[in-house]
Amino acid sequence: MNDAPGVRLTLDEVRALAFTTLRLVGLAPAHADAVADTMVAGERDGCASHGIYRLLVAAASIRAGTVAVDARPVVSDPAPALVRVDGGGGFAQLAFARGLPHLVDKARAHGIAALALTDVVHFAALWPEVEAVAAHGLVALAMTPSHAWVAPAGGTRPVFGTNPIAFGWPRPDGPPFVFDFATSAVARGEIELHRRAGTPVPDDWGYDASGCATTDAAAILDGAMRTFGGHKGSALATMVELLAGPLIGDLTSAESLARDGGRGGSPLGGELIVAIDPAGFLGAAAAVHLRRAEAVFDGIARQGARLPSARRHAARARSLRDGVVIPAALHADILRIGG
Amino acid sequence: MNDAPGVRLTLDEVRALAFTTLRLVGLAPAHADAVADTMVAGERDGCASHGIYRLLVAAASIRAGTVAVDARPVVSDPAPALVRVDGGGGFAQLAFARGLPHLVDKARAHGIAALALTDVVHFAALWPEVEAVAAHGLVALAMTPSHAWVAPAGGTRPVFGTNPIAFGWPRPDGPPFVFDFATSAVARGEIELHRRAGTPVPDDWGYDASGCATTDAAAILDGAMRTFGGHKGSALATMVELLAGPLIGDLTSAESLARDGGRGGSPLGGELIVAIDPAGFLGAAAAVHLRRAEAVFDGIARQGARLPSARRHAARARSLRDGVVIPAALHADILRIGG
Repeated sequence: MNDAPGVRLTLDEVRALAFTTLRLVGLAPAHADAVADTMVAGERDGCASHGIYRLLVAAASIRAGTVAVDARPVVSDPAPALVRVDGGGGFAQLAFARGLPHLVDKARAHGIAALALTDVVHFAALWPEVEAVAAHGLVALAMTPSHAWVAPAGGTRPVFGTNPIAFGWPRPDGPPFVFDFATSAVARGEIELHRRAGTPVPDDWGYDASGCATTDAAAILDGAMRTFGGHKGSALATMVELLAGPLIGDLTSAESLARDGGRGGSPLGGELIVAIDPAGFLGAAAAVHLRRAEAVFDGIARQGARLPSARRHAARARSLRDGVVIPAALHADILRIGG
Repeated sequence: MNDAPGVRLTLDEVRALAFTTLRLVGLAPAHADAVADTMVAGERDGCASHGIYRLLVAAASIRAGTVAVDARPVVSDPAPALVRVDGGGGFAQLAFARGLPHLVDKARAHGIAALALTDVVHFAALWPEVEAVAAHGLVALAMTPSHAWVAPAGGTRPVFGTNPIAFGWPRPDGPPFVFDFATSAVARGEIELHRRAGTPVPDDWGYDASGCATTDAAAILDGAMRTFGGHKGSALATMVELLAGPLIGDLTSAESLARDGGRGGSPLGGELIVAIDPAGFLGAAAAVHLRRAEAVFDGIARQGARLPSARRHAARARSLRDGVVIPAALHADILRIGG
């Protein structure tokens, strides 16, 4: 049990707090709706770092002037199996919500389809999006660059963003199998926490600005983080830069950071989401094979290993029943945002 | 320089040796052609482990009776943006060659497309295939399960295969950017080499059959290998099991190993290859954005970090000029295959 003082809220109350706060800082209602949804999802699933804590992050981007608060996403149809949503410099959530029905329709019609969000501002996790695609019975793969903070394997200077990859797979008897991870060794927020606490980090998290490995969190934030998994993680980070950058005509992480120009806003650029319909290859046999896929999950869980999404789904069940507890200090900070 | 005795061959001679040997062990001409091509590519690019050494592996699968030597791949059209090739239990190479033109056509027509190879036997690297897709100006992502040899993060018993992921990206001024890596911590062949040499392996490569970490290569081969990159690599290995297994109606790595039934054949099952046309999202602007992507590669190479495909392409240039040197002992072993 956590004895730090906290404020217990229902998920409806979390949503109202998020929506109201986003409106107070000037975000248009449709955006505030879509953004509040992902913050509630984070809080509900026990991902505090992607819960309503992110109100502080969103408000900072709005105040820094790096996000268009009333952008109207424009959906277009560049090819039969592709959808594009030009986010007009607004937050990604509304652009995703506008593109999702088209992505679902196209994946069902063609077997596979891809949705590109372009000119959007990103500060949220990708798992709510792949989960939303999987809720339609489709398999989803999503990725996005960020700001250039991460060095390639064999180098010490930033090229990549934290470049997350997320995957969703529909399961017959419950929530989908979902993973969502940064291709950096750790989340940037984790290094931030060490910097604030003044505690050292492991010596394989990153480099200082002169290219030396360091345990000093502040030095890494001014230098470069490492990718996870050595040259393999570095290769994946490169793939994310390319697929959710130049392939869709949008910014690389280096270009995003340059565009920010030191204002400290969230990453700008694009996102790519691929959806595949299991009925595309399998027709009516899809249900049989999705059932067969459960043996893979059983093989993992039976030996006590954790499925990536299991902890979130357990937290979700608790939150739906009991609500959530917001740290009192964070709650106070949020109430001050609109002040 | 390597002073071990060797036999210098031109690439044409390597190809003739591979084709003749495959014919001698009973492989049908069209298969022998396609399989010889990938072995020449491996030898040419300095990947000795995927060069004509693999003649020994292919011959062993044929003699074990786990591969259909005269299978006729059947192409079908399950959805507008999907292609399926039923390999009929033959080697994957010919099935891929038959499916490739359809994948290319569908990716160009729809913006994105996917090719499933089903009921094929796999022993080759994936990079020749993503490189072949990229040669048509398309982006490619390929994956395949193998035999269940790899434990999930947090477990110690095999669930996954070595489950490689390969990616190809066309570059305007030369060969494509390509990576191809196993989601296991190391290649299984590397552990085999240690077993033969009787040398210990690092203690984070795998577990013995009782689930204890070990430095004994033979114990890991009887137990379980680890994934690369902890829970992130494990998540990717799961994705490969699902996408190139149940999604296309084919075997998981556990099912492949069970089907082999101790015969020691190469993995059986499927492969998924996704292709995306840069002109799909970008139209005529694709060339501009592919050019812009070069900044990502420059950012990596400028600081002395290696691009994944650079070493192979340097070896290729040497091999095209000078031919290759096959170790004398391997050359003798190959000549004995047909005897």
